[in-house]
Amino acid sequence: MTNPLRDPQDLRLPRVAGPSAVVLFGVTGDLARKKIMPAIYDLANRGLLPPGFGLVGFARREWENEDFAQEVHDAVREHARTPFREEVWRQLSQGIRFVAGDLTDRSSFDLLRSTLDELDRARGTLGNHAFYLSIPPGLFPVVVQQIKATGLAERKPGAWRRVVIEKPFGHDLASAEDLDSVLADVFTPDEIFRIDHYLGKETVQNILAVRFANEMFEPLWNSNYVDNVQITQAEDIGIGGRAGYYDGIGAARDVIQNHLLQLLALTAMEEPLNFGPEQVRLEKEKLLAAVKVPDDIGQHTARGQYATGWQGGIPVRGYLEEDGIPPDSSTETFAAIRLDIDSRRWAGVPFYVRTGKRLGRRVTEVAVIFKKAPRLPFGEASVVDSADNALVFRIQPDEGITLRFGSKVPGSAAMEVRDVTMDFQYGDSFVDASPEAYERLILDVLLGDPPLFPGAREVDISWRILDPILDHWSTQGQPPPYASGGWGPASAYEMMSRDDRVWRRP
Amino acid sequence: MTNPLRDPQDLRLPRVAGPSAVVLFGVTGDLARKKIMPAIYDLANRGLLPPGFGLVGFARREWENEDFAQEVHDAVREHARTPFREEVWRQLSQGIRFVAGDLTDRSSFDLLRSTLDELDRARGTLGNHAFYLSIPPGLFPVVVQQIKATGLAERKPGAWRRVVIEKPFGHDLASAEDLDSVLADVFTPDEIFRIDHYLGKETVQNILAVRFANEMFEPLWNSNYVDNVQITQAEDIGIGGRAGYYDGIGAARDVIQNHLLQLLALTAMEEPLNFGPEQVRLEKEKLLAAVKVPDDIGQHTARGQYATGWQGGIPVRGYLEEDGIPPDSSTETFAAIRLDIDSRRWAGVPFYVRTGKRLGRRVTEVAVIFKKAPRLPFGEASVVDSADNALVFRIQPDEGITLRFGSKVPGSAAMEVRDVTMDFQYGDSFVDASPEAYERLILDVLLGDPPLFPGAREVDISWRILDPILDHWSTQGQPPPYASGGWGPASAYEMMSRDDRVWRRP
Repeated sequence: MTNPLRDPQDLRLPRVAGPSAVVLFGVTGDLARKKIMPAIYDLANRGLLPPGFGLVGFARREWENEDFAQEVHDAVREHARTPFREEVWRQLSQGIRFVAGDLTDRSSFDLLRSTLDELDRARGTLGNHAFYLSIPPGLFPVVVQQIKATGLAERKPGAWRRVVIEKPFGHDLASAEDLDSVLADVFTPDEIFRIDHYLGKETVQNILAVRFANEMFEPLWNSNYVDNVQITQAEDIGIGGRAGYYDGIGAARDVIQNHLLQLLALTAMEEPLNFGPEQVRLEKEKLLAAVKVPDDIGQHTARGQYATGWQGGIPVRGYLEEDGIPPDSSTETFAAIRLDIDSRRWAGVPFYVRTGKRLGRRVTEVAVIFKKAPRLPFGEASVVDSADNALVFRIQPDEGITLRFGSKVPGSAAMEVRDVTMDFQYGDSFVDASPEAYERLILDVLLGDPPLFPGAREVDISWRILDPILDHWSTQGQPPPYASGGWGPASAYEMMSRDDRVWRRP
Repeated sequence: MTNPLRDPQDLRLPRVAGPSAVVLFGVTGDLARKKIMPAIYDLANRGLLPPGFGLVGFARREWENEDFAQEVHDAVREHARTPFREEVWRQLSQGIRFVAGDLTDRSSFDLLRSTLDELDRARGTLGNHAFYLSIPPGLFPVVVQQIKATGLAERKPGAWRRVVIEKPFGHDLASAEDLDSVLADVFTPDEIFRIDHYLGKETVQNILAVRFANEMFEPLWNSNYVDNVQITQAEDIGIGGRAGYYDGIGAARDVIQNHLLQLLALTAMEEPLNFGPEQVRLEKEKLLAAVKVPDDIGQHTARGQYATGWQGGIPVRGYLEEDGIPPDSSTETFAAIRLDIDSRRWAGVPFYVRTGKRLGRRVTEVAVIFKKAPRLPFGEASVVDSADNALVFRIQPDEGITLRFGSKVPGSAAMEVRDVTMDFQYGDSFVDASPEAYERLILDVLLGDPPLFPGAREVDISWRILDPILDHWSTQGQPPPYASGGWGPASAYEMMSRDDRVWRRP
């Protein structure tokens, strides 16, 4: 089998990063402390970072290198997945630098440049630099322009520079396009890595493996056999201390635009020519371009705000009572949308996506729900309790796959059929703990391997899907409240009843 | 949904036997003591036998009713599935009778008749009699003729008589037809119950439930997606004390003709109009009639005799060294056959059936093995350890269903796919222990409900399949020996290699 776009030999090489440095903007944020710093340590601990590796922090703090190293050390001790090993830490910490500076201050970036020069010399990072923008998106343009102005983005022979950005990639199509052009002014498309950490999850990548490595799923994967697909991301917590980020963004922009539309694309897309980044993106783009928003948005979507109430025996505040949220906020904390896919494969099969905070439990899953058998030869009275077949990719937690099907109840007089499930648990089959999504993705950045990063066009198309829905909602006032610990507002149930369906209880 | 052949209302009625008596010929045999008597008690204990129930033993023993009742009692205490309850036993034992007699002696059957008359009066069994022939098939004709001669088979208004026979139903087509005509002389087809206890197993009935109650298996159930089907019945023990029964019969007649061809029929048959006995038999007959024996029998079958050796650390005797086996016996203790099905659905899909004694472990399973995906988009080097998808019905022990499929190995650099399994265990989903096959089947006899009993035509067609193979083998001398604890003779592996396939390790 030949692969026109990628040498299969590549796949056999050990995937160890070459000499390089990561410049981290936003070192004091939750994401940096809980995910990025621990992931870098875990990569080092797994032997996947080279001796010539550097980590440069940039922030408005009066820190020396040692202070920042201590911060990283503490984050690693608290959040790393793999055990702490002194010798790994010692090696890693020797490449840690800190630049005390302001994002808007040109001289801070000059200082960053000289720090990188020093690091290149001292640690042999060879001028390969990844700029990781773990900062609010409003600050992207200024940082990107400073990088350009100080010559940090200059292409040098044999060296690379890359930029890593985190969601949200804009808040609508127009702002996403603005962001694209800011980035395109300084970086080429293959230097831009948009992190959607869902794509780094093993269970998400496994959707493609299961679909395409096997012969028995793809024949069923179409409107002949699939009744509907339900993609759920549910959290049991509220917004916590993230009012500043969350309000004005809301559930659809925070989760559906990126994670859930990516899950939808991976679940529904055609088989790519190969797993190279171009081909996978091409298929995702094609799929997303075929997504149709319902004509009557009010009838086929639902949104809500979690209300004051009880969850797990503990009183909880409603969204409008959270610190930092204006009492007239119309930001939704629950969003559910029916989408259709205008393709031969999927015409007539609704894809329901939903996400929310303070729901029944924390779970992310993709449930492919098959049609009922066209007729049952057992006699009407005998089939008592059989729902539809379903194949469920359990993304998190409790990673695995579930197959629901009808089976005979033993000892039953007539042919009594009841639903049972077959389970595959990641933990049972694979001894090694799965790496964190961020380990995989940061390593991919350092290797310049982008298949798991959404491209600019995918992001733009996603906004094209969401914009009319967000526009509609913006004319509808405040979202209705929903009870904490439940599964969303009444309108979410109603939108399904209109289609003669029910939400799966994940 | 209406059922032309059976009122669906029937299925809602409690399935409790009406007044009736079972006459058991062969009370001293293993089957009677280990299976039939305990099953009758278990049915009573489950409340499925009426107060007016009788059990009549017939044997050449100087026993009184009480002696036979003691025999039944001991068998129940030792082998019943459900707990012993004194009040159930007291009730049951009051209907126990014994007839000391000889099968060839007319006066013994006159005594049986008067015993049944007495039982009808004393216990209200109302003249409903089931004659259970748990005796060597050579004795069937004489017993059936005695039953006729003494008028025991006479049809009385409002009463029924039925005959139950155990395998082997003949030893070839001619003898099976002889047996049919002996039975047909006295009983109508719906009065004849051929016990194939595999059909009473929950896991066997579940093959039909899973195939037809669900939408997601049937689309795959054909030559487009299925590569081959492997039906295995393996025992880890030898023939034990059954030399007299086994020698001259062998593995193919003992297991393939009945159990494995029935499993094949249920796995491969078209969907029946309904689950009434006529329709299910019709589809099984149609399927079996489409079975083709290989043109070159020598190349596509294998047989063997277990050799002296070791199993589980214990020295074991070879078949030819077993007590009662002539040293030049050519009876096979292992048999494997490739069969093809000449139908649009299955053309090109071989069905491999195999059975043997002293194999690696005790297991019966039906493995539907799917084709490999036509191509893999992951890059050649990345797929390292993926076999074919398989759906495996685990008939016994460890009852359940396994689905084997390829899944991404977590943390793997490239897209590395390895086989994993998804399991459904009966015991996990259904709290109640499954009834023994004999409970279900004896109750069906008393209710006159025959869907789980093979019809005469099915049996005849099965012999038509086996006869040419047995004829071929009979010209080939003694079967080759095979090692105890393995999976059969070299020829079994060779027949698969010729097809570029391998046996599944169950």
